[in-house]
Formats: sequence, structure tokens, C-alpha cells
Amino acid sequence: MLFSKNLTWNPDGQHIYVTGGSTGLGLSLAILLVKSGAHVSIVARNQNKLDDALKELENHRQHSNQKLAAHSFSLDTAEESAAALEVVCEPHNGRAPDAVFACAGSSKPKFFVEMSAEEMQNGMTNGYWVQAWTAMAAAKKMVRDRTKGKIILVSSTLGYMSFVGYASYSPAKHALRGLADTLQSELMLYDIDVHIFFPPTMYTPGYEEETKTKPKITRDIESTDDGVTAEAAAVALFEGVRAGHAHITADMITTLFRASTRGVAPRHNIFLDPLYDMAAYIIAPIWKRSVDKRVREHRAEHREYLVEAGFFS
Amino acid sequence: MLFSKNLTWNPDGQHIYVTGGSTGLGLSLAILLVKSGAHVSIVARNQNKLDDALKELENHRQHSNQKLAAHSFSLDTAEESAAALEVVCEPHNGRAPDAVFACAGSSKPKFFVEMSAEEMQNGMTNGYWVQAWTAMAAAKKMVRDRTKGKIILVSSTLGYMSFVGYASYSPAKHALRGLADTLQSELMLYDIDVHIFFPPTMYTPGYEEETKTKPKITRDIESTDDGVTAEAAAVALFEGVRAGHAHITADMITTLFRASTRGVAPRHNIFLDPLYDMAAYIIAPIWKRSVDKRVREHRAEHREYLVEAGFFS
Repeated sequence: MLFSKNLTWNPDGQHIYVTGGSTGLGLSLAILLVKSGAHVSIVARNQNKLDDALKELENHRQHSNQKLAAHSFSLDTAEESAAALEVVCEPHNGRAPDAVFACAGSSKPKFFVEMSAEEMQNGMTNGYWVQAWTAMAAAKKMVRDRTKGKIILVSSTLGYMSFVGYASYSPAKHALRGLADTLQSELMLYDIDVHIFFPPTMYTPGYEEETKTKPKITRDIESTDDGVTAEAAAVALFEGVRAGHAHITADMITTLFRASTRGVAPRHNIFLDPLYDMAAYIIAPIWKRSVDKRVREHRAEHREYLVEAGFFS
Repeated sequence: MLFSKNLTWNPDGQHIYVTGGSTGLGLSLAILLVKSGAHVSIVARNQNKLDDALKELENHRQHSNQKLAAHSFSLDTAEESAAALEVVCEPHNGRAPDAVFACAGSSKPKFFVEMSAEEMQNGMTNGYWVQAWTAMAAAKKMVRDRTKGKIILVSSTLGYMSFVGYASYSPAKHALRGLADTLQSELMLYDIDVHIFFPPTMYTPGYEEETKTKPKITRDIESTDDGVTAEAAAVALFEGVRAGHAHITADMITTLFRASTRGVAPRHNIFLDPLYDMAAYIIAPIWKRSVDKRVREHRAEHREYLVEAGFFS
């Protein structure tokens, strides 16, 4: 289309499944969906957080017959993710949800040469598989049920670009983008829409967790970042899905990367997108050069750090 | 830099490790490196193919003291990949190679809803881990040895974009791009250069293997593709590394995607790259629209296929 699509999707009365729905982006999104009149099921690991989240969702209930549910599952494997989906669908006559938002995920930044094989693999599990398995279970179920539903994945600005510290996380977030672009094409076979969200830094419990292992140089580079709240990110995601955007962003920097890292992703606006692309053509290399300079200047300090950490012994 | 870099890297006398070196791109590249006077070690799985490849490499020997070696290893796990690297380095006083070309990998296209969890995971292993583990072992060894080496990964045009059929492969190739972009930044800490190659369809034994499972619609979409030979791809890769390009391509279509899917990858040429980007702005949406149309037109036929395949039973 030439211009931005009108907002058409209305989740009122639909059954929406949100993974990672007990905190952060997932919870904020679930609240928005409940406010829109949707039946909402959330899944996460921690039962206490789920209990609190469900109470919070109940506060925003619009109709007495809205079905709100919370279930505890790990979504690390295909089996667990398929089992979670079945349980989530039970109160809805076992039918596939109308939309699945895969918001689960976490990041553990660290220097590549200090990472264990297990940490690298956990990066892929917690950044990619935790969503890919849900997408797989949901796609199979939607196709069987002939549900013309929506599948929404959550990547990151680090799914468009990357820098020091994210060797376990950025590959996973890039992989999600590859999966979303494939499925956006392939699931047209079944009239299933696929969207992917690229949020910037979000001030969530997950963010506080990841700063614990984040290398100093990575924190320094990010110190000028303007993050967004989980609430603002959830609004951007919700509006993006309503607008029918394949790639959704929540801040200007990531929008520039979207336009300049577009592959075959459908564009939003035939006039604005090239302007973003041109802006990125100027801004991205300036940013990259300054980051490269910082990394190089950090060499001596980093070597000392590695020596003290016992890397060479 | 403003213009293309001069070709500076000279592998003569260096020790270069090539994974997937017994056939296709890996073998063609190994031959080029032997011709350049490098000590070349190749690793692959199949001993017979390795024997043939080593004979072929011997035919191109430039010096009597060139060390040419072939070792059989699976590179699917971190342990195997680290073990392979150690064996490869033994004849070189155990020192890290000057350059590591991770060319190993394979693809098995299939419809997403027909894939098993194991097939999805194999896609990540054969498209991503088979190279990521080697990159990890090589980076650690280079840092310990203070080798200012090079690490080169091999993605695909499908690391920039994707379409129906590649749900297990494209995520892996996108992940490699995320890893390369991270390491291009992070390994500056140690003066290690990181490059990534995005070849289009290559007419190799691996390509013949993947067509066996490739869905009809995927084959149809690719029927107008101009692929390249392994030899031509190897030359492009070699010249790209010599030119110091972070992202390397071997054909015009992928070059357009490189310019329009650039993230923070350093550009090659400040005047040409925006032209490629502009061309992609026009061409990519035209291509995408025609592919979307084909996919939608394939719906009825695909449903019949799924019914016959027993998907709904």
C-alpha cells in the first residue's frame, strides 16, 4: 500500500495468548488486550508472578464473561510449548487462539571469549527457541483449525544491528527476524498474519537482570540510550499490529534501522521510509565510528580485566 | 573509509583453517588459498571426500614446505569444534590459525507446519552452530595466543531476507549475521577481523541435496534465480576479505540486499552503496509483491498437498 494502513484489527471478543505475560512487555500488552475486551491467557514460569499478574488483569476486565487465565510453563522446548498452548486453548473449546504474542525471552550480555558453550546455547534458547517453539505450535494448530490468526514475535533493536557484548543474544534476535520474514511469506498460504516487534531498551525486570552481567564497555556504549517503558512499548506493539505492519518499532532509532535493514519486509510508508533510510545512512556510520573508537580505546583496560579474570592462566 | 580499500591481505605463508573444506565453496576456497601459498587445513565429516580434496589441494601446491592437511570431524558441538581446532593447529606448534573460514553448513527446506522439532533444531545446528562453535574456539585461541587473525563466517542471501520454505534455514543464516556483526565490533578489542559472506544459490553438492526436500512453491520462486558456481563464490569471498569488507557478496541481487539491509555494517563505497540501496528500494518490493502473489495463488494446491500428506488426519 502507498500510505499507512488504517487501524483495523479489533481484539474484542477474541482469544489472545501472551507468553512472558507475567511481567514487563508481556504484562503491559496483556493489560491493553484485556482493556480491549479480549479473552487473554498468559503463560510464564513463576507462579507467584502469574498470580499477581492475573489479579492485575482482573482489575481491567471489561465484560463479566471475559476469560482471563494464567498458567505456569517453561517454553524452552517444543514439547513444553505445545503443551502450554493446548492447556491455554482448553477453555476455548480447544480451538487455536486468534492471536499469539510471543513476548517471552531474556538476555545475558557477556564477552564472547568468556562465554561457556552452555551460555551461548542458553542465549539461543532464551532469545529464540522460547518464541520459535510457540510459533511452531501455534502455526500448526491454526492451520489444523483453519484459524486465520496472527502470530507476533518480539525481537529487539539488536535484531537489526549489534555490538560488543551481545554474542549470545543478538544472533537469537536476528534469528527471530529471519523466522518472522519467512513465516510472513509462508503463512500467507493459510491467511495467517505474522508480525515482529523490535523494541529498544525497555525498563523492565528483565532489563535489571541483564545489567548484572553486562560488560562495562557495553554499558558505556548504551549510556546515552533513551529506553522506553514496558507500557509505551506495549502501546507501540499493539498499534503496529492494528496497523498491519510486518516490522514494528517503538522508537526513532530503531525506526531508522528498520528502514535501512529492511530486506524484503513490506514498507510502512512510501515517502517516510526513504527519509528514515537516508537519515540512517548518515547517522548509523557516525554512531558506529564512535563505538568502534570506544572499543579500541578500551583495549588495554580490557586486557587487564581478562588477566585479572584468569583468562590467560 | 570513503572509497574501496586496496587489496592488502596476503595469505602466503599463513596457516588458514577452512571448515566444510572437502566440497563446494570450502574446497574452492581452499584451492585458492593453496595457490596463494598458504598452509591450508581443511575439516569435514566424510573421510573419502577429504582424501579426494587433499589430493586436489596437493595439485595446486606452490612451495614444497606448504603444510596441507585434512581431518575428519563433526563440528556440530562446541567440544568437537574445539577438538578439531586443536588437531588442526598441532603441526603449527599449536598456535592459532591466521585465518579461519567457517564454510561448513547445509540446508533442508520444508514447510514449517510439516517440520518436526528435530528438523527445526537441525536447521540451527547445520546453519548456525556448525560455524558459531568454530568461531568461538578460534576467538578464544586467537586471544590467548595474541594472534591478530581473521574469522570469516558464511551466511547466505537468506541471511538478509527470506521467503516460504526456509523456516529452519533462514533464522540460522540471520543468526550468523547477528554473530558476525557483534564480533566485528567486539573482537576489535583483540585486533581480530571478522567478515561474513552472503552467497546466493551456489551450484554445489549441497545445493543438489537441498532440492530433494524443497517445496514446489519454493522451487518455483527460485526458478528465475541466477546462481553462481562454487569457484566464482570462492573468488568473491577471497577478494572481499582481501578488500577488508565486513559484509561480502558475490552477485548483484545480494549486493542490493546488503546495501538495503545494512544495520551498522560498514559500507563499501560511499557513492555506490546509496545507489544500490535506491535500486533495492524499487526492486525488492516488486519482487516481494510477485512472490506474495504466487504464494497466495498456491493456496488451494497447497491445501490439497497437505490433505494428501495426511496433515489433517
